[in-house]
Amino acid sequence: MLQFKAEQLEKVASAIFQGTGTPQDVAELVAHSLVSANLMGHDSHGVLRIPRYCQQIAEGQIVPTARPQVTTETPTTAIVDGNWNFGQVTAKLGAETAIKKAKEQNVAVVTLVHQNHVGRLGEWSGMMAEAGMVGMVITGGWRSPITGVTPFGGAGRIIGTNPYSFAIPTGQHEMVLVDFATSVVAEGKLQVAIAKGAPVPQGYILDKDGNPSTDPNDFYKGGMLLPAAGHKGYSLALIADILGGLLAGNERVGRDWNLTGTFMLAVNVEAFRPLAEFAAAVDGRLDEIKAVQPAAGFQEVLIPGEPEMRSKAQREKDGIGVPEATWEALLATGAKYGVDVSKVAGI
Amino acid sequence: MLQFKAEQLEKVASAIFQGTGTPQDVAELVAHSLVSANLMGHDSHGVLRIPRYCQQIAEGQIVPTARPQVTTETPTTAIVDGNWNFGQVTAKLGAETAIKKAKEQNVAVVTLVHQNHVGRLGEWSGMMAEAGMVGMVITGGWRSPITGVTPFGGAGRIIGTNPYSFAIPTGQHEMVLVDFATSVVAEGKLQVAIAKGAPVPQGYILDKDGNPSTDPNDFYKGGMLLPAAGHKGYSLALIADILGGLLAGNERVGRDWNLTGTFMLAVNVEAFRPLAEFAAAVDGRLDEIKAVQPAAGFQEVLIPGEPEMRSKAQREKDGIGVPEATWEALLATGAKYGVDVSKVAGI
Repeated sequence: MLQFKAEQLEKVASAIFQGTGTPQDVAELVAHSLVSANLMGHDSHGVLRIPRYCQQIAEGQIVPTARPQVTTETPTTAIVDGNWNFGQVTAKLGAETAIKKAKEQNVAVVTLVHQNHVGRLGEWSGMMAEAGMVGMVITGGWRSPITGVTPFGGAGRIIGTNPYSFAIPTGQHEMVLVDFATSVVAEGKLQVAIAKGAPVPQGYILDKDGNPSTDPNDFYKGGMLLPAAGHKGYSLALIADILGGLLAGNERVGRDWNLTGTFMLAVNVEAFRPLAEFAAAVDGRLDEIKAVQPAAGFQEVLIPGEPEMRSKAQREKDGIGVPEATWEALLATGAKYGVDVSKVAGI
Repeated sequence: MLQFKAEQLEKVASAIFQGTGTPQDVAELVAHSLVSANLMGHDSHGVLRIPRYCQQIAEGQIVPTARPQVTTETPTTAIVDGNWNFGQVTAKLGAETAIKKAKEQNVAVVTLVHQNHVGRLGEWSGMMAEAGMVGMVITGGWRSPITGVTPFGGAGRIIGTNPYSFAIPTGQHEMVLVDFATSVVAEGKLQVAIAKGAPVPQGYILDKDGNPSTDPNDFYKGGMLLPAAGHKGYSLALIADILGGLLAGNERVGRDWNLTGTFMLAVNVEAFRPLAEFAAAVDGRLDEIKAVQPAAGFQEVLIPGEPEMRSKAQREKDGIGVPEATWEALLATGAKYGVDVSKVAGI
């Protein structure tokens, strides 16, 4: 494991993306987004993704010179067309548009179309909370070749992991930041189990015939992930499919392997009560929850977002650990585009 | 088990409520709401509730002569103050207000304050779907003496079962209607297990000290229900607490046993694409899901809301079964207010 400061990794990411022909502002935005995911402890959404993104650029799936634009629009709603740029660029314009409209109209809904991977959803809902809004972001889609979730009661991998994020402004506390997949676990957990040669618990996956399995390899032989909490996670995933995917017309984008879209809601707290008063009420509620005695096997009760904020504080101080294999992949990817990654990182 | 037509039960419910001094229009609205829950198969939200509601009227908790009113208001938002009338009356005005505003402004958020039990959430989100809107309804609150859910990792029953509902307009299919509690199960399931003398599965409850338990009696000895899917259900429950409770100021209502409120969102589909086109896209997606082969132990894949719609069709035809004990309670409650329930039911 190598240790880097966030700034080093941002420089590396930005340099590699610029090496592919990505404009500087876009490269810096995506680099910042990926490294912020690392800081928050979500390494699966961090610099690990760079080689794959570059491959997607090479294959024309990501068009880094495109610019997202607002298409269909009303004072309270918008569709943001990403034009297949990086998903983060699309999502940022989406969140900015939702915030601007909610500041003017108190409530706004923005949907994204022609989007690539938008990264960590909490980044976009969190922008709304920082602006004094309640933020809600849902991504939905299907036919992804990588993750495959079955509807409850079924044996077919036709639903994505369709995540939900909410962010709530606070006073003294860090913002409440919810961000979870509607599948019982992310696919990455299966890869970890395989690497360890360990089984997964009952209730994670079915095999290709729809039978319960504890062998994580069964997922990669045509099996499927189960939705979280049975019909509840399935219901949320289907709503994400519809609100993220269909509301903006993502079923017509012509890419059967990526029909995902995103639904964003911003609600201006001030339309209901003064923000400071609301924030104090939320703080009080969080204090009550933090005061609950831990259950057997737990040290304390955490607020959603608290693990991420702690990771951020620790990694800003101690740096971000990058596995050797990931670093090697970054070196190799940089080399393809004439970027000396070690030099950029200053090592 | 006695069998009744929906109309018979509505007449009974309305007559009993009118016997308590409830105005006719309010009595009929609540009666219709309760019986529609029975039709949908949610007997826990049906006529079973009448004796308790009447007790709440007697105790001044429900004020049936009060009228809900819109207080704080903008073109896209409103707070509806229920003035402690039946929750259904408050929720209906809330949903109507959200629909009206969303028709004019495309998106609307309404919160409810001073509300009693609002009944089946799907009734209110469903009203929005019938009006061509995406509907989302969340109820949140805490310190309820009846149900008690612990935050994930904790051992304190300070969170409600905080349900979520979504409704989506469709074309040929019945509407997509999601309605679930964020606890792993409703408290009623524990009562059923006790009645049978059966244990509950691991993961349903903790005992009063925060240890896992399979004895449903432990819940009633200071134990607690667990949130669905661990931190995911807990996160949703906390968001419901904040959006349902705190956004409208329900922490200040002066009833520590009922600090619940409701958050309603209506989004006009037409702001994004023509409703018929959206409905056809949703239909297509539902067809894909219905075509998934069933998993081991299942007969078919169901769409959220499908079990309710089937129950409704069947019970409209065959009638609604009412257990003897429930019927006896209705007879006794009616008698208190000079209502001959058998005569009203025409039996």
